Amino acid sequence: MNYYKQLDRTFAALADPTRRAILARLERQDGASVSELARPFAIKLPAVMKHLDVLDDAGVITRSKAGRVVTVRLSLDPIREAMSWLLRYERFWSGSLDRVAAYAEGKEAEARQTDR
Amino acid sequence: MNYYKQLDRTFAALADPTRRAILARLERQDGASVSELARPFAIKLPAVMKHLDVLDDAGVITRSKAGRVVTVRLSLDPIREAMSWLLRYERFWSGSLDRVAAYAEGKEAEARQTDR
Repeated sequence: MNYYKQLDRTFAALADPTRRAILARLERQDGASVSELARPFAIKLPAVMKHLDVLDDAGVITRSKAGRVVTVRLSLDPIREAMSWLLRYERFWSGSLDRVAAYAEGKEAEARQTDR
Repeated sequence: MNYYKQLDRTFAALADPTRRAILARLERQDGASVSELARPFAIKLPAVMKHLDVLDDAGVITRSKAGRVVTVRLSLDPIREAMSWLLRYERFWSGSLDRVAAYAEGKEAEARQTDR
């Protein structure tokens, strides 16, 4: 896949809250089974599987099978490229990445409270 | 728009090479007219206008009209949020880069000793 197509797929994969939640889960616990990943969601397993297909097509996860258990892992190269693309704007907010990260954590905590 | 919906729209807006090219252009020259933005593309003006609509709906650009000229500007808050979301993965590669560097230094020190 070329660089542009890869970025298209990565950003499209990120444009969904369930898929982002799956990626966030894998960031905390890499190497989760499909049923572990599906558990927190109200949607049915086939819907989760479809989201995993999108993530797999974008190359941001890998799936490996051992017996009846499919283990899902993060594959970070495409995410790194997406972040690199966005980094061009860094100079605009001229803050350190730390400040941006702190801002994100605040926003997320806020969102968790208001969306509850 | 809530935090999750905003991220959905921002990442979806980024999932297209023409829209990313428009944003990259605005990063170099903020405050461009629609015709300036359209010029490098092989696609027709109405197609460019549609991409601008998507960017505007995601809140990553603003458009202002003075006489017959529409000026397009970057609006960075949503892009900052998207980047913040991706920053959670930073520890994965910053950690591994450190480890790669340490490994390389170890190898080099080893080589200096055995080649002496």
